[in-house]
Amino acid sequence: MTSLDPTLDDFVAGVLAGDRAILSRAVTLIESQSPLHEKKAQKVLQELLPHTGKARRIGITGAPGVGKSTFIETFGCYLIQQGHSVAVLTIDPTSKLSGGSILGDKTRMENLSRESRAFIRPSPAGDSIGGVARRTRETMLLCEAAGFDLILVESVGVGQSEVALRSMVDFFLLLLLPGAGDELQGIKRGIIEMADYILVNKADGENRPRAEQARLEQQASLACLQPATPGWKTEAALCSARTGEGVPQVWQRVEQFFRELEPKGVIAKRRQQQAVDWFADLIRDELQRRFEQHPSVQARLPGLRESVCRGEITAVAAARNLLADLDSFAESPKYDHKN
Amino acid sequence: MTSLDPTLDDFVAGVLAGDRAILSRAVTLIESQSPLHEKKAQKVLQELLPHTGKARRIGITGAPGVGKSTFIETFGCYLIQQGHSVAVLTIDPTSKLSGGSILGDKTRMENLSRESRAFIRPSPAGDSIGGVARRTRETMLLCEAAGFDLILVESVGVGQSEVALRSMVDFFLLLLLPGAGDELQGIKRGIIEMADYILVNKADGENRPRAEQARLEQQASLACLQPATPGWKTEAALCSARTGEGVPQVWQRVEQFFRELEPKGVIAKRRQQQAVDWFADLIRDELQRRFEQHPSVQARLPGLRESVCRGEITAVAAARNLLADLDSFAESPKYDHKN
Repeated sequence: MTSLDPTLDDFVAGVLAGDRAILSRAVTLIESQSPLHEKKAQKVLQELLPHTGKARRIGITGAPGVGKSTFIETFGCYLIQQGHSVAVLTIDPTSKLSGGSILGDKTRMENLSRESRAFIRPSPAGDSIGGVARRTRETMLLCEAAGFDLILVESVGVGQSEVALRSMVDFFLLLLLPGAGDELQGIKRGIIEMADYILVNKADGENRPRAEQARLEQQASLACLQPATPGWKTEAALCSARTGEGVPQVWQRVEQFFRELEPKGVIAKRRQQQAVDWFADLIRDELQRRFEQHPSVQARLPGLRESVCRGEITAVAAARNLLADLDSFAESPKYDHKN
Repeated sequence: MTSLDPTLDDFVAGVLAGDRAILSRAVTLIESQSPLHEKKAQKVLQELLPHTGKARRIGITGAPGVGKSTFIETFGCYLIQQGHSVAVLTIDPTSKLSGGSILGDKTRMENLSRESRAFIRPSPAGDSIGGVARRTRETMLLCEAAGFDLILVESVGVGQSEVALRSMVDFFLLLLLPGAGDELQGIKRGIIEMADYILVNKADGENRPRAEQARLEQQASLACLQPATPGWKTEAALCSARTGEGVPQVWQRVEQFFRELEPKGVIAKRRQQQAVDWFADLIRDELQRRFEQHPSVQARLPGLRESVCRGEITAVAAARNLLADLDSFAESPKYDHKN
């Protein structure tokens, strides 16, 4: 891992100047699980906070194999041609990469990684989705302070990472494969309900008719759903990340989203709600963590849960029982912000 | 309020004997917010617990005006004619009724309230949906111990009460009005996704064609959804609680549900999951309550939340700030089970 010698001022000035090396080290600082680094990271963030929030935050998800990396490569290069600067971040709770290794993503997005106005950072490692997502969120703030005007955040398309992703982006893009039904694609209904745009990827060559079929199905089922964003109509479209076809239209649609909704205050309101929800989540998770680490709880929770499950004790009696001698959390480990 | 003089043994023996007066007083005991009564109520429940769980638990919801009371009256009387004994409970977080007043429901369900094999109890009062739902759950257990073989639990059809209802019943029935679309009926998509059966009520006279239209629409949109209960196909049907048409078919469908799913263990598994989830909810709510009642939290939470909302401090820094001096919950009031 890179040395963490830069001072607070070095970090703040370097990130604000868009210094790529300092930005990388600041991200590494944020990803560190050492309490000392965490303290410093929070100070850096606090200083940079007034310079954040100006980028457009775009979430991209889809099941494994749908071609997310190829799409981000093509889309990212297109955005850079249009004059934007693009940071690409990932939420992957299954990632075991150390903060410093970006070889994986550099290989995945070869052209994009060569662009000077692109910054690609793989998922932080972490033992919980909350911890991983928190570090991605904070990295997003760093990238905004460094002047990137578009942040693309990718999630791996399995389990809870989409919910975490939706809660930190303005616009949420779902990639699907041609042909296969929702269930075959491992896409839960709830994910489709969160999408601001559905894109059937790999709509090229002989896949084209099946892609159009998939698009029509999605379009029909969207009619059943309430929109993910108030005042915005989620649509389904085709693209081929391989040939680049349909990619400019994706960007047009994203621009339309911001053009229509920003003046109405919808984006600002969403961001405020996201911040307040995140705050509440952090508190709830920490209270739960302190509770679960309490020695008396560790000794008794599994047995009580089993009794509740078997119907031997009511849930209320079990909760009362467990919480009665927890008037104090004093024995609990201190909040160390590891997650 | 009724005197609470019966002893623990009086309550247990009386409820098990199906003594209606004792059952009513036991429910009043459960609804009491006095810590002393609560302790006694928990002891009564613990004694009765081995005698609970044998009833079929049916949840009934729908927007105000859909005719829930009339439906429950007609359905309940039909079930009693078929030889069942029926308890009718309610979750209504907006109810301000005291535990003893059942005049409202007696007027609403005049015929059913005259049946000796029916027991109608209005919603407990409470300051939170959690508190109200908890008392309804416990009343359900009392009614099971008293020998009722069918428990109908009604929710008011607004807000969170449906989620609480779904989490305590085996079978979830949603009533709709003829004609109007989902949104006009104030029915959220999420409620439809929880339903095991959708019933378009008031399908009589000149309403009939519009009711059939509504049924077809629901049937079509159900095709988009994953089933609420694994292995069960949610269908939409018509009925008229006023004329009684379609009501026997509702019962046939409920019986089919249990006949098909009970042998597969689906019902037992759902109940186990409900109990474990309830246990976890009670713990989480209590931790949150202790946290919010902590003097330091009360003094600082609103200001910090406002700063997070305005983007002046990150959620992580605010949470760290707030939780740092909360190593102990010792100053917090004791868990008094008021909710």
